[in-house]
Amino acid sequence: MTKGAPIYNRVALIGLGLIASSMSHALRAKGLAGEITGHARSAETRAAALEIGLCDRVYASAAEAVQGADLVVLAVPVGAMAQVAAEIGPHLAPGCTVTDVGSVKQAVIEMVGPHMPASVSFIPGHPMAGTEYSGPHSGFATLFVNRWWLLTPGVDTDPAAIARLQSLLESMGAKVNSMDPAHHDQVLAVVSHTPHLIAYTMVGVADHLAQVSNSEVIEYSASGFRDFTRIAASDPTMWRDVFLTNKDAVLDILGRFTEELFVLQRAIRMGDGDHLFDYFTHTRAIRRGIIEAGQDTAAPDFGRSGPPPKG
Amino acid sequence: MTKGAPIYNRVALIGLGLIASSMSHALRAKGLAGEITGHARSAETRAAALEIGLCDRVYASAAEAVQGADLVVLAVPVGAMAQVAAEIGPHLAPGCTVTDVGSVKQAVIEMVGPHMPASVSFIPGHPMAGTEYSGPHSGFATLFVNRWWLLTPGVDTDPAAIARLQSLLESMGAKVNSMDPAHHDQVLAVVSHTPHLIAYTMVGVADHLAQVSNSEVIEYSASGFRDFTRIAASDPTMWRDVFLTNKDAVLDILGRFTEELFVLQRAIRMGDGDHLFDYFTHTRAIRRGIIEAGQDTAAPDFGRSGPPPKG
Repeated sequence: MTKGAPIYNRVALIGLGLIASSMSHALRAKGLAGEITGHARSAETRAAALEIGLCDRVYASAAEAVQGADLVVLAVPVGAMAQVAAEIGPHLAPGCTVTDVGSVKQAVIEMVGPHMPASVSFIPGHPMAGTEYSGPHSGFATLFVNRWWLLTPGVDTDPAAIARLQSLLESMGAKVNSMDPAHHDQVLAVVSHTPHLIAYTMVGVADHLAQVSNSEVIEYSASGFRDFTRIAASDPTMWRDVFLTNKDAVLDILGRFTEELFVLQRAIRMGDGDHLFDYFTHTRAIRRGIIEAGQDTAAPDFGRSGPPPKG
Repeated sequence: MTKGAPIYNRVALIGLGLIASSMSHALRAKGLAGEITGHARSAETRAAALEIGLCDRVYASAAEAVQGADLVVLAVPVGAMAQVAAEIGPHLAPGCTVTDVGSVKQAVIEMVGPHMPASVSFIPGHPMAGTEYSGPHSGFATLFVNRWWLLTPGVDTDPAAIARLQSLLESMGAKVNSMDPAHHDQVLAVVSHTPHLIAYTMVGVADHLAQVSNSEVIEYSASGFRDFTRIAASDPTMWRDVFLTNKDAVLDILGRFTEELFVLQRAIRMGDGDHLFDYFTHTRAIRRGIIEAGQDTAAPDFGRSGPPPKG
């Protein structure tokens, strides 16, 4: 990676988990920030951040960490956003940009917006990237490469502030798009939040079965279930907050999911093979669209990773 | 790979899709079969099998393909097993072994068993390996390496025939275990069949949404949903037959799943964060068990593949 001039002189990372630590690695690799300050509630996390070099300075208080920063990144669970915003609001430098990385946008705007001074540009954001790991050690510089980073700025936000933030995110490798916060939450309920809940549920069902032992489930989890367990291993705090704060959209999608599942369940019960075949054929086409959109590769990875097919 | 003496003189592959073509590559790589004959209904598939070298000879009729074979592998969709078994039954060489690769075992035993002459050892099998690709071009020699290949032989089956087949499967890299057919079907309903149905359903829900366009779903399918689409891209014929023939076990697990989902859905509606947090924390532990059992690696692959975490 080549280094250019820093895009921000001082970036304050509030919360030092997977996203913030990956941002730090990416910012440093590309020389995008003059310096990086950080805050985490846990002394252990702060010590780790210094040791790994995520931050030049760490602070036990978020208010201190944001002082003099021209970019503040709120990278705490959605449920902690209101408290952090209230704490830093009075200490933000005039003209600075505040963004967040929460997976839900309407709730974050309601929590954070009222605490932002008029001189500050608040640009809500959501990097669509993650792994099932969390904490300051889990980050890596390429996490955002070729991944979407969605922004949901208000209509009155300074276009120059948006352009500057977008430039930073793109320099870390992300693809940036802006959308309405309500639409964001609906899209995410479909492509991420509800699938996560379903994966959690299926893993829980397997765990509760008396006839099939946990060790059997674990031993034979090669197909299908293995992907579910990966999803279901994501950070519990983050996901609790996602479901509590994107409640309406998730409940809507869950209702549709249950209806649809009942139709397939009925087809199984009635032995309606044509219905099942047509349904499964149609879903296959959607997968092809995803591969063509470049979100995934065509290499088979459903079982353990193997070489690509020859034909 | 080193070549030894062939374990079978003539292996007949009935059906030439992902599993059979992978077997052919593995058998040839290790010199495990003296020769390989094959049958597929489609002339195009037969021509491809000859062209790639999957088979030494191909036949338009399954009856011809099995003649003189000491191992016959039924690698057709479960729904086609009865017809194929009826066709080959009278042409099987005395003393030969017949196995199948269906994902459901009780139904296959009911379909195939009655057509097997007394002189033949019928050993139902299920390789727990696959990709979302199908057809004669989709196979590769390492598909079975370190994957389970479950056998569900009857109590009267010749132990020497089982040991010989097991030796072949292990030579292709598989781990072999035997279990009761009913238990097999129940385990698979949990770890594979129901997760597949759920993934199909969720992909269908996304497709039906009016407020969120298909192109948005495809574009932003980075997390959670991407794994579902991979699962939902599997072979429609195979999965239709799985659900029709493992109906009771799948309906049982689906009922449990829906109950469990409703409890989580209610927790979201009631804002019960503690319930959600505890549930999600518990499912994380199951994932750890899977990693420890060696079914998957700890490398994060939830988003696009990235390097492992540093800590």
